[in-house]
Amino acid sequence: MSCVFCAIVADEAPAIRIWEDDDYLAVLDIRPFTRGHTLVIPKRHTVDLTDTPAETVAQMTAIGQRIAKAARTSGLHADGNNIAINDGKAAFQTVFHIHLHVVPRRDGDKFSFAKGMLLRRDPDREETGRILREALARIDVAEKD
Amino acid sequence: MSCVFCAIVADEAPAIRIWEDDDYLAVLDIRPFTRGHTLVIPKRHTVDLTDTPAETVAQMTAIGQRIAKAARTSGLHADGNNIAINDGKAAFQTVFHIHLHVVPRRDGDKFSFAKGMLLRRDPDREETGRILREALARIDVAEKD
Ligand SMILES: [Zn+2]
Ligand SMILES: [Zn+2]
Repeated sequence: MSCVFCAIVADEAPAIRIWEDDDYLAVLDIRPFTRGHTLVIPKRHTVDLTDTPAETVAQMTAIGQRIAKAARTSGLHADGNNIAINDGKAAFQTVFHIHLHVVPRRDGDKFSFAKGMLLRRDPDREETGRILREALARIDVAEKD
Repeated sequence: MSCVFCAIVADEAPAIRIWEDDDYLAVLDIRPFTRGHTLVIPKRHTVDLTDTPAETVAQMTAIGQRIAKAARTSGLHADGNNIAINDGKAAFQTVFHIHLHVVPRRDGDKFSFAKGMLLRRDPDREETGRILREALARIDVAEKD
């Protein structure tokens, strides 16, 4: 399979999964800017904002919002999040299957954020995944109440 | 009025308007990273991803997608766009009324983009506004066909 995100969706490539439903998958970015950097990926392959249905863009972002809220309430103790869609090669898109970035941030992390953009690694990805899944599960329960 | 975006929505502060409906307003960023840098603002004041309804986040992003598509087909000749929501002070949010950035990009603009992040000015804002409004109007017509 030539698309790495389609391979992840099909479970033919490894990834640390944070959240999933029939149409969307959220996984940890393999080269994170910060701890908990997550990608929300529609399971149906489209390339960028020019060919992705508005409904998919909207839904992908609403899921990103849930993950951003989870990052704040989680053991990652995020104080905020950058949400981003890089639409096209000119805008730094590197995987041509549309996706949304959620980058948890902490107060005063400007320098570790800049360093993270260069290093792009998480020494304990499994634990980061567990922390985010747990926080998302709590949000799901709270919203069902 | 203490919120500058509420003042713009109420037409009590100036802005170059790109697009508007009953619930959302899109204006040029007064300190643009690139030419055509636009903000999508829900008219109802909320602060960030913690207090904004999912429906609003979704709709705001779908409008951002339309503007991104318009930037590509417009006289700005964008080859791509960065879409971003800065959720919280820790994530570089500076106006605490939620908004979405659309930053048109061109192939090979990496250095002018970096320069634009420092200079943050557009020598012909009125013309930029006119170009984007025109491209959006064409998209609206095409979608009604
Ligand atoms: Zn794919
Ligand atoms: Zn406001």
